[in-house]
Amino acid sequence: MTQSDTRYMRLALSLGRRGLGRSAPNPAVGCVIVQGARIVGRGWTQPGGRPHAETIALAQAGAAVRGATAYVTLEPCAHHGQTPPCAAALIEAGIARVVVALGDPDPRVDGGGLAMLHAAGVKVETGLCADEARADLAGFLCRVTLGRPMVTLKLASSFDGRIATASGDSQWITGAEARRHVHAMRATHDAVMIGAGTARADDPLLTVRGLGVDHQPIRVVLSRHLDLPLDSQLARTARDLPVWICHGRRAAPELVSAWSGIGAEMVEVDETQGALDPGAVLQALGARGLTRVYCEGGGSLAASLLSAGLVDELVGYTAGVAIGAEGRPSLAAMGLGRLTEAPRFDLTETRVIGSDILHRWRQRHR
Amino acid sequence: MTQSDTRYMRLALSLGRRGLGRSAPNPAVGCVIVQGARIVGRGWTQPGGRPHAETIALAQAGAAVRGATAYVTLEPCAHHGQTPPCAAALIEAGIARVVVALGDPDPRVDGGGLAMLHAAGVKVETGLCADEARADLAGFLCRVTLGRPMVTLKLASSFDGRIATASGDSQWITGAEARRHVHAMRATHDAVMIGAGTARADDPLLTVRGLGVDHQPIRVVLSRHLDLPLDSQLARTARDLPVWICHGRRAAPELVSAWSGIGAEMVEVDETQGALDPGAVLQALGARGLTRVYCEGGGSLAASLLSAGLVDELVGYTAGVAIGAEGRPSLAAMGLGRLTEAPRFDLTETRVIGSDILHRWRQRHR
Repeated sequence: MTQSDTRYMRLALSLGRRGLGRSAPNPAVGCVIVQGARIVGRGWTQPGGRPHAETIALAQAGAAVRGATAYVTLEPCAHHGQTPPCAAALIEAGIARVVVALGDPDPRVDGGGLAMLHAAGVKVETGLCADEARADLAGFLCRVTLGRPMVTLKLASSFDGRIATASGDSQWITGAEARRHVHAMRATHDAVMIGAGTARADDPLLTVRGLGVDHQPIRVVLSRHLDLPLDSQLARTARDLPVWICHGRRAAPELVSAWSGIGAEMVEVDETQGALDPGAVLQALGARGLTRVYCEGGGSLAASLLSAGLVDELVGYTAGVAIGAEGRPSLAAMGLGRLTEAPRFDLTETRVIGSDILHRWRQRHR
Repeated sequence: MTQSDTRYMRLALSLGRRGLGRSAPNPAVGCVIVQGARIVGRGWTQPGGRPHAETIALAQAGAAVRGATAYVTLEPCAHHGQTPPCAAALIEAGIARVVVALGDPDPRVDGGGLAMLHAAGVKVETGLCADEARADLAGFLCRVTLGRPMVTLKLASSFDGRIATASGDSQWITGAEARRHVHAMRATHDAVMIGAGTARADDPLLTVRGLGVDHQPIRVVLSRHLDLPLDSQLARTARDLPVWICHGRRAAPELVSAWSGIGAEMVEVDETQGALDPGAVLQALGARGLTRVYCEGGGSLAASLLSAGLVDELVGYTAGVAIGAEGRPSLAAMGLGRLTEAPRFDLTETRVIGSDILHRWRQRHR
């Protein structure tokens, strides 16, 4: 493969990322169609998961598609779902060559798309920019292979790891640019998730604001007993923007009815050690089609996800302020003995964001 | 001033930095002498603080010095100390032009060097790269203006701000590259300082190792009651490499004698609120000639320095590991009420160092 191939695939990847947070349960795929040295079609998975990227790009290319090369970030589908399979559409349009970043592990595809193309005489190449595609499509891949969405955990703290003073004062630790970045992160996830303590303490709205984005993520709150105020911002907006409440099996039926009644979707999950089982919560969210969940704490939920090895990506914001040991910690107790048992992450990026540091880490698989 | 002027001054600054950690109580100055477009002399303050940078550069330039330009990072001295004044030496050598980054606030100089040069018909220009010079010479400037050394605080922690598990396991949180950087930081400071708790818990040597550096910083330990083990690494090496112990006035005389007897220098300082007064400690260290102190914790000493506004620079190392709230905090309690009272720092640098993040901050002056 050539440098141009890589350039076109990078473009397809960047197009694909436009669908992040709005294509679930489908993958956010990107597609570029090139005739000679001319880009004749560009597409990405549309809101709600269809039309697929290939469909859009083929329609845009029109007659110029005969003999062209298609760059697709994920193996084209081979199964008849609500749309005919993309592999068939590519063949029918007369595409001569298909370059694919990553095979689709979905059991309904799993090599079938590539085989169908190959059998029809289309030249097929795979593995170009596979690592980038794997990172972009991590949420989809996680749900297909593990049954749960990927989890991105946000930690915004002072440089000594505190999120508020002892009295609860937390406005503001990080600056406006970091908070704006948080809104951008919300927009690229299917759902924003918090624990009941944070819901009570901060009364957040959890929407994407200030970015000109029309799409809003689902707001997920974990509350074993449903002891959440019914006059909160989340409750008052539940009719207009989705709110899902994960609760235990012994939550009071009248509270379940009350929250249902104001428009929340109720998700009953198993408990473990006196708390909602974080694995069961994520399986329930995966079963409902979520692929990317952005967790904004608090410290107990973050610690339980980390302890269970369920945090795939960590996004930290560190501010140049010292709060001291009475301050509220970003992570609750994790019950660690030796340091070798601690969950480890690999740094993927660090940069200045306003007056703070942004740092991103990926779970280290042992 | 021209681009070449800036380039030569930058060179002088980088030469000056070679003296950091070994020129106290004198400033680590750099000097470049340029004849036409040729660098004919380069000098920096030598170990122990003399010869001065200008003396070295003049000697190196020899006869080529007549009519040349000298770039000096700090105003040449005007007073007869153990060496004749550098301003006089520059005049006598026939230097035609002197470019200075920063005036010397030392009351024995304070414009006198510039005035002497000017009176002798030498062309004098000041303020080139003044901010860089101010940062490099911060320790000297701090001692001259405030009577105390500048303090650089090291904080190496997990991303939730912990320095060990509950059981005290701290090997290793950060990686080999970050630890190597710590040794390089030690080498550019006059002294390394720790609290008694860290001395007892870690039994550190506090030397510079693995960098091919022959010079070693003074090792300073704060211990109000002198309840430190006499068989520690610090005690056993006190004859060969300086150890200074800051203690309270009521420390047992037999312990003062015992530590003196093994070669430690004893520094008696005032107490405040049941601990050594951090301001008094630094004044005592400044009186003994220290200009740059590198504090490596622990959490109580770090918190008391931060609370007192005595941390000038903060160097953080953040590792991709989660320890949780039972872990030992990097900072002890600071008694903060509102967030607006918290000490704030401005980010000067962030970058990847091995598998960790390095971040540097400078105290924000309000």
